[in-house]
Amino acid sequence: MRPFAWVETSAEIRELYSHDWTEDLRFLPDAVALPSTVEELQQTLAYAYEHDIPIVPAGGRTGLSGGMLPVKGGWVISMEKLNRILHIDTQNLYAVVQTGVITQHLQEAVEAVGLFYPPDPSSRGSCTIGGNIAHNAGGVRAVKYGTTREYVLGLEAFLPDGRPIRTGAATLKNSTGYNLTQLLVGSEGTLAVIHTAILKLLPRPQYVRTLLLGFPDARSAVEAVVAILQNGILPTAIEFMERDAVLFGEAYLGEKLYPGTEKFGGLLLVEVDGNHLESLESDCFRIEEIAMERGAMQSWFAQTAEERERLWRLRRSLGIAVKSSGPYKEEDTVVPRTVLPELLDYVKALGRRYGFRSVCYGHVGDGNLHVNILRENLSEKVWREEVPQAVEELFRFVISKGGAISGEHGIGWVQRRYMPLQFSSEEIELMRQLKRVFDPKNLLNPGKLLPD
Amino acid sequence: MRPFAWVETSAEIRELYSHDWTEDLRFLPDAVALPSTVEELQQTLAYAYEHDIPIVPAGGRTGLSGGMLPVKGGWVISMEKLNRILHIDTQNLYAVVQTGVITQHLQEAVEAVGLFYPPDPSSRGSCTIGGNIAHNAGGVRAVKYGTTREYVLGLEAFLPDGRPIRTGAATLKNSTGYNLTQLLVGSEGTLAVIHTAILKLLPRPQYVRTLLLGFPDARSAVEAVVAILQNGILPTAIEFMERDAVLFGEAYLGEKLYPGTEKFGGLLLVEVDGNHLESLESDCFRIEEIAMERGAMQSWFAQTAEERERLWRLRRSLGIAVKSSGPYKEEDTVVPRTVLPELLDYVKALGRRYGFRSVCYGHVGDGNLHVNILRENLSEKVWREEVPQAVEELFRFVISKGGAISGEHGIGWVQRRYMPLQFSSEEIELMRQLKRVFDPKNLLNPGKLLPD
Repeated sequence: MRPFAWVETSAEIRELYSHDWTEDLRFLPDAVALPSTVEELQQTLAYAYEHDIPIVPAGGRTGLSGGMLPVKGGWVISMEKLNRILHIDTQNLYAVVQTGVITQHLQEAVEAVGLFYPPDPSSRGSCTIGGNIAHNAGGVRAVKYGTTREYVLGLEAFLPDGRPIRTGAATLKNSTGYNLTQLLVGSEGTLAVIHTAILKLLPRPQYVRTLLLGFPDARSAVEAVVAILQNGILPTAIEFMERDAVLFGEAYLGEKLYPGTEKFGGLLLVEVDGNHLESLESDCFRIEEIAMERGAMQSWFAQTAEERERLWRLRRSLGIAVKSSGPYKEEDTVVPRTVLPELLDYVKALGRRYGFRSVCYGHVGDGNLHVNILRENLSEKVWREEVPQAVEELFRFVISKGGAISGEHGIGWVQRRYMPLQFSSEEIELMRQLKRVFDPKNLLNPGKLLPD
Repeated sequence: MRPFAWVETSAEIRELYSHDWTEDLRFLPDAVALPSTVEELQQTLAYAYEHDIPIVPAGGRTGLSGGMLPVKGGWVISMEKLNRILHIDTQNLYAVVQTGVITQHLQEAVEAVGLFYPPDPSSRGSCTIGGNIAHNAGGVRAVKYGTTREYVLGLEAFLPDGRPIRTGAATLKNSTGYNLTQLLVGSEGTLAVIHTAILKLLPRPQYVRTLLLGFPDARSAVEAVVAILQNGILPTAIEFMERDAVLFGEAYLGEKLYPGTEKFGGLLLVEVDGNHLESLESDCFRIEEIAMERGAMQSWFAQTAEERERLWRLRRSLGIAVKSSGPYKEEDTVVPRTVLPELLDYVKALGRRYGFRSVCYGHVGDGNLHVNILRENLSEKVWREEVPQAVEELFRFVISKGGAISGEHGIGWVQRRYMPLQFSSEEIELMRQLKRVFDPKNLLNPGKLLPD
């Protein structure tokens, strides 16, 4: 039962690795492997393969689709000790890192040498590069800089039986064979266990400017997003928070955004970055002007780094603030930006029809709206049977508008039943066969991503 | 032999579709299908599948790796009549196009409405979006804007038997299932026939500035590239041309770059774009300054749109200019940028050792150096036996430095024998199995991408 020193079987440790941030779900693993070296990882995999033990790779366990839940038992392999930044190439602008590195640690390490790693999930202080790759994490800067996928140049991984593979190269472009790199990005630990990544870096922008805009209602806030982006301005971030989301965040942190923000039904947090301060400031004023034309009633410019930090702290806290308020489901809808107002209306109408309250916020600059459905006083029957029906309606709406059911959280365990809404049976069968190519024994994160 | 009105079997047409721009290679197809609708494409595929006819999808036939050569006979399916721009969404910034659209046509159509499609292969006047997707084409703007892959949000395609699949969505981010979109990008028409693409667009930058820098020798030109990019400036393009390349281009076009450029062993063509003219001009002067510190002896700023156009016309002509001079092989090496000077030295040393002349140019801002090996007076034996050995040495060097054997041209027919240099037998076997998932009868562009 404990073939290696780095495999833990105590009840405490198993409990700790039985959940991520997804709802209140818990699945106990039989054991938890904590390899400290790539060799230990490989040995773990080879052993598990031989003994038909299901394996679930885990990062920071901050996922919101249940991607690391050991739903079929077996072993969780935590990558947390494979957390070395192996190399930062300041001339060619890439980093080589082990996938257990905490995202914020990498951000800080590269910023210290004048570089920039843009992907920036709200959970950056806890999530890992490996988890980000597994789910193609987005975060607040995706409007301008894209998602994790656009920064992954190459990978080193093990197939389920422990055989090593390498993909890509340390180059900005590559047309050499099938793109295994991009097939592994977003594959949620179901195809291979990725232990090392070559990540593209950018020069660090010298200046950042941040402003908050208050709109009378949520709808007018998201309506302004398209207008801002149609003026040739490309902000780093355009984040939306409806009033309830702000109230949850403020209560959770015990601090206020700005005096008076509670008057506004919807807020946009907008950030621009670059090397020319004057351009940024003129962009900010233009954004403010457009927002005012679209109904914004107040704006606040962050005057200091501390003030900016406070805005982002609040924005980043929303997920955990809603979670700490009680049971909820978080849907990760993404649509073309012009659909956002209609999507918001649709969510609220669904809530009225099914009797739930929702709290919405998200990365609206790239059309990504997080819809949090609160359990509150809903009966077990409504929660278990009717709310999933509402989610299905929501997803059908999203897909009918050219959108997708997950923008950045992945499918994991909780969304897989909805995959047939997005994909035909041919497409799902193709995915199943791809899975089989990499993992013929179905030992790697079984029960995830694909429907039964 | 001619089951559909759109299938041509005349000797003339078959000859026309027997080659692309790769060396002097020719393989006659048995027939050429020219479907005008998606339904005709589907019928063609279903028929060919039933009759075990190999199918080679073709775009503009400008490829440099022999990707559209019908090496196993069968039918070429030319996508040239599926050339409609179906939709340009000016609010959500994407276009939906059939893959037979000429790249330049799409560029011009979106620029006319203030938008921007950055991928810009030198063959943009002839190549198609489908060919660009098949090979993950790069081009001159990849330094700042990335390659084709970063603009493909979703695809519609047929499996070899004609069953339709859709991938992705009309959204900027997506974490919904395995990334079939990115698996198809760069798959060289071997997995599915892509007929429609959803492509991300950007706001069109208002200003462009272009300068040319003359260096005493080729090495000092490529050495300056890293210095330019280390100063936090991100040019749109940094193109390198060695003296011979310029001479070929000038002779081909019958026009000169600037008086005196022939004095320089290496030239860099640098372009910046953005919305703030002052920032661009200060960037240009900084680039000039850095280049001068690194040995540049002269600079020319394009003063007019016509002058800028002339510079690019010359740069874009290099491939066809070298080609028109006689038989040659073009290698598409890509390395981390700091390796470029050493790579250039290596190429020239190889040439001295094997007795060939090479002409080098390329997208050095992203480490992509096109190495053209001229046949000139080499004997048949040297050309057929020794030069491939030299290419293998070159590729081993590139790979040992973290690079890849193709930056943007793809593997196709002529590079596939070198795939085992880049990939292990496990990795190649994985690719082979992926191929089998999509194309179990091996009818779709057989004999490409993977080694025998």
